[in-house]
Amino acid sequence: MKSLVKIMPKKGVLDPQGKAIENSLKQLGFPQIKKVKQGKIIEIEIDADNESDAREIITNASNKLLANLVIEDYEITFLKED
Amino acid sequence: MKSLVKIMPKKGVLDPQGKAIENSLKQLGFPQIKKVKQGKIIEIEIDADNESDAREIITNASNKLLANLVIEDYEITFLKED
Repeated sequence: MKSLVKIMPKKGVLDPQGKAIENSLKQLGFPQIKKVKQGKIIEIEIDADNESDAREIITNASNKLLANLVIEDYEITFLKED
Repeated sequence: MKSLVKIMPKKGVLDPQGKAIENSLKQLGFPQIKKVKQGKIIEIEIDADNESDAREIITNASNKLLANLVIEDYEITFLKED
């Protein structure tokens, strides 16, 4: 099973990388781009019988290692198998 | 309009961050997690009349600045407005 954990800075937390991209894009001539936030995405291949088991394991892993809950929010999604 | 650009290392390109997470998770007791890849996600707020205009602008921005096409692939998706 393949899952994605999307980790973004929480609202109100400084996001210097996003800001830097935003400014660079403006200078490169993209005035339509208003706001940029940068986060991480983690693709995980996991052995589990069903999605709810997998979600539990990944939630656990996210809390323990993947995300810094003081400054980041995370969101788990599953990719459809082909 | 809100869009997400997901940027992942291409197949075959070394991904030391993903590898590090994979090893740490194994040591922390997550044997079910088989493979980890880490990428970036960039959330963009853009002024555009429609999705195809927005996609064109963001594709352009991705090629010019956001992704390193030698080692990374990118994928653009749009978030549903509430």
